[in-house]
Amino acid sequence: MSNSWWQNPCKAIDAQVVEQALARQQQLTKPAGSLGQLEPLAVRLAGLQGQLKPSLEQLWIAIFAGDHGVVAEGVSAYPQEVTGQMLLNFVSGGAAISVLARQLRAQLEVVDLGTINPSLELAGVRHLNLGSGTANFLMGPAMTPAQGEQALQAGRDSALRAREQGAQLFIGGEMGIGNTTAASAIACALLGIPAAQLAGPGTGLNAAGVSHKAQVIERALALHPQACNDPLYALFSLGGFEIAALAGAYLACAQEGIAVLVDGFICSVAALVAVRLNPACRPWLLFAHQGAEPGHRHVLQVLEADPLLDLGLRLGEGSGAALAVPLLRLACDLHGQMATFAEAAVADRPA
Amino acid sequence: MSNSWWQNPCKAIDAQVVEQALARQQQLTKPAGSLGQLEPLAVRLAGLQGQLKPSLEQLWIAIFAGDHGVVAEGVSAYPQEVTGQMLLNFVSGGAAISVLARQLRAQLEVVDLGTINPSLELAGVRHLNLGSGTANFLMGPAMTPAQGEQALQAGRDSALRAREQGAQLFIGGEMGIGNTTAASAIACALLGIPAAQLAGPGTGLNAAGVSHKAQVIERALALHPQACNDPLYALFSLGGFEIAALAGAYLACAQEGIAVLVDGFICSVAALVAVRLNPACRPWLLFAHQGAEPGHRHVLQVLEADPLLDLGLRLGEGSGAALAVPLLRLACDLHGQMATFAEAAVADRPA
Repeated sequence: MSNSWWQNPCKAIDAQVVEQALARQQQLTKPAGSLGQLEPLAVRLAGLQGQLKPSLEQLWIAIFAGDHGVVAEGVSAYPQEVTGQMLLNFVSGGAAISVLARQLRAQLEVVDLGTINPSLELAGVRHLNLGSGTANFLMGPAMTPAQGEQALQAGRDSALRAREQGAQLFIGGEMGIGNTTAASAIACALLGIPAAQLAGPGTGLNAAGVSHKAQVIERALALHPQACNDPLYALFSLGGFEIAALAGAYLACAQEGIAVLVDGFICSVAALVAVRLNPACRPWLLFAHQGAEPGHRHVLQVLEADPLLDLGLRLGEGSGAALAVPLLRLACDLHGQMATFAEAAVADRPA
Repeated sequence: MSNSWWQNPCKAIDAQVVEQALARQQQLTKPAGSLGQLEPLAVRLAGLQGQLKPSLEQLWIAIFAGDHGVVAEGVSAYPQEVTGQMLLNFVSGGAAISVLARQLRAQLEVVDLGTINPSLELAGVRHLNLGSGTANFLMGPAMTPAQGEQALQAGRDSALRAREQGAQLFIGGEMGIGNTTAASAIACALLGIPAAQLAGPGTGLNAAGVSHKAQVIERALALHPQACNDPLYALFSLGGFEIAALAGAYLACAQEGIAVLVDGFICSVAALVAVRLNPACRPWLLFAHQGAEPGHRHVLQVLEADPLLDLGLRLGEGSGAALAVPLLRLACDLHGQMATFAEAAVADRPA
């Protein structure tokens, strides 16, 4: 690989600020530990930002979209035109993530890496035209190495734009009919789990549909055996443009020092690829939620992720991550604004 | 009981709006059900508010505080003066709930029902002086019937003020050193669960402390056997002023038509009392989170509650409910602002 920028070092965490933030948490007017998961979350964000009192006002949401050749095998409940139609919905303000981005005062960027309609031109969408969707991975690799590298770079470019805008938190979202099949195939390859255990209903397959999807994935794994040992090969042979872009964005965020909030199953698979490509990116990845797709649990477990929400979400678009943003912000507000025992003249319990 | 206002009818839910809201959810540009718990939540809020597109901008948070005579038995990790000290912290803006109320643009009201310092006078706190804390329930009933009725009425008064201010959501919080012991005793009585199974560390007891706490509760249950069959008797003989006020507030909210977001273990026990006193209040109670206190799970189960968060919280003050407010608001925003398939010209899947 000529240009493997993703193996460059990731930014280090500020261990001194982590110590200070831990000490501050112990002094706030509450029983130690009583804010549960929000306490280590605030401390971690302090370490990532190198600020005793972290802030998450500046929020960047990038939606990466792409179509999938494997849809020809009948693995999705929705027609493939929906990918392009949803691009318009994202920029028109009617999609779930559009509503959430507005409410959260986030900058929303929409990147079309390549759909079945290459002539699509929508104001407010970055059309990159890497191909009219990926190739059907039952016929060969989903992407050429050149396409794969372009997709990784597209994610990195979004992270660099986020950095320029002063983003304090990066959310990647995805849209692509068929992409739970691609993500499941990558996860099966990298985790060594049979497709029958990992494949799920995606946007709404019935039991027969899930069973067929698992068979399609098993055939793909047999066709691309090298995917089991090589995350880049797995990504390019089984993945999607948007999954590669997410992995690239996560890696670049870790290199640039922007905390990432990972959304659902597909984003978590992209995070798994990123961590396998460069394990030093792991501390920069926060996990928003445990989704409804059954494979998500396996991926989160391997990544030792401790997600904040468990609401049965399975929409994608970055929506689950967006829904968790207020918890992160409030964790920072509590950490930064609560009085200490000394400031409030409240008795701490005897040591 | 001369004045049992709490048995008056509760407001009915608008079944027609529920139907309309359910139909709207099916038309929004997402796979049906893909927003998980947020979909029935938005539909339920629509029914409670009688509005197809509910809103939760106007938020009322009332903190009820009181001291507990049973603290004389050594059941808390913190000294009893903390109750009064925290009252000052609430109105000074340094407590967790103060920070959260500010960030959520909520109206915060602090009601002191009776602490060990009856001469306490703090600007911004409503001091009701029902007693210098409850009596030690190992020596007799915690409250007289008159005190109990005054505490219920104090909660109702807060709900009535909330209604006057146009509140769309009511959160009750509590503060009272020793109140997990009182709440656990009520829960054991009403659920028929042994104290050893239900008692927990509260603000931070060790294993020996929890065991002692369970023994204190068992003695109280033996002393007040009638509590098992009579929720009002359980509340007055084993409860706390703030627990009675919470129960009164929940009942009045259901009568006045204000949705309630219930906080942690102690608030859930107050909700249990309210539901036992008047089962028609149940639909008005939403449950914010599963807390760390082990007894909480039992109470939520009996109430068939489906809490939104599970973050290991155990602070009280209404803080867990406040942390869930953005999820409720975003559920309403998604329900109200997303485009329909027809509006966005997105293909729904074949029926």
